[in-house]
Amino acid sequence: MDKVIDGVFYTNLKQIYNPKGDVFHAMKQSDIGFNGFGEVYFSSIHYGDIKPWKKHLHMTLNLVVPIGCIRFVIYDDREKSPTKGLFNEFTLSPEKYCRLTVPPGVWMAFQGVGRELNLLLNVANLEHDPNEMVRIDLEEIKYGW
Amino acid sequence: MDKVIDGVFYTNLKQIYNPKGDVFHAMKQSDIGFNGFGEVYFSSIHYGDIKPWKKHLHMTLNLVVPIGCIRFVIYDDREKSPTKGLFNEFTLSPEKYCRLTVPPGVWMAFQGVGRELNLLLNVANLEHDPNEMVRIDLEEIKYGW
Repeated sequence: MDKVIDGVFYTNLKQIYNPKGDVFHAMKQSDIGFNGFGEVYFSSIHYGDIKPWKKHLHMTLNLVVPIGCIRFVIYDDREKSPTKGLFNEFTLSPEKYCRLTVPPGVWMAFQGVGRELNLLLNVANLEHDPNEMVRIDLEEIKYGW
Repeated sequence: MDKVIDGVFYTNLKQIYNPKGDVFHAMKQSDIGFNGFGEVYFSSIHYGDIKPWKKHLHMTLNLVVPIGCIRFVIYDDREKSPTKGLFNEFTLSPEKYCRLTVPPGVWMAFQGVGRELNLLLNVANLEHDPNEMVRIDLEEIKYGW
């Protein structure tokens, strides 16, 4: 990737070995990208399917994929952003175990890559509120999926 | 179960159908059992294995099982508790999708029930701190596992 979109962070996370079952970090309140706590929820995405573009007006997303594999695409069309016009793509899985922080104001869509369960955890600074998000169809932002 | 241990909550959670992959609630800051945000992490437990008794002095646990099946046993030996001496057992899975809130001061151990990945999410009010917990061997509290 050439450049990371302004406000986006891609942070390595620890997986701690335990003979009875490993522990996986997700987010601490002292971590980079933490912007307050509103809600944590899971979202799943079937193999090959894409949940299309969504933009949050106030919510910061902190995304972790503890099982399966998910491809996230972010698009920056913010008027005053130093990275306006840029796309970023990140593929998250337990094998490449990272947290992706997505600031409000950019577009994000994601696709299921694993053939079985693909699960993301979002640690959000706000509770779900349909009024703080905008949804558009996949075709409205052209990308080589 | 006769009676729930004082401070323990067992709360039904929503699973929201989506043709591309469902959404699963975990915890909102306005939910019962929420006691502040310190950290979220995952822990896994292999089939048949038991992670033995642990007591937190200050941490409230909020446990959700998005995949697999995990059996949790809680034991209350708090001197002034109205439920002193009681054991509670809860089995969590996506099929019986609930959140288990465990207050500080009680003992908890858990066992992997599913034959594949058993994963819990803990939404904790504190960051991990080995000084605020006590660990003892499984045999130190007798229970019919």
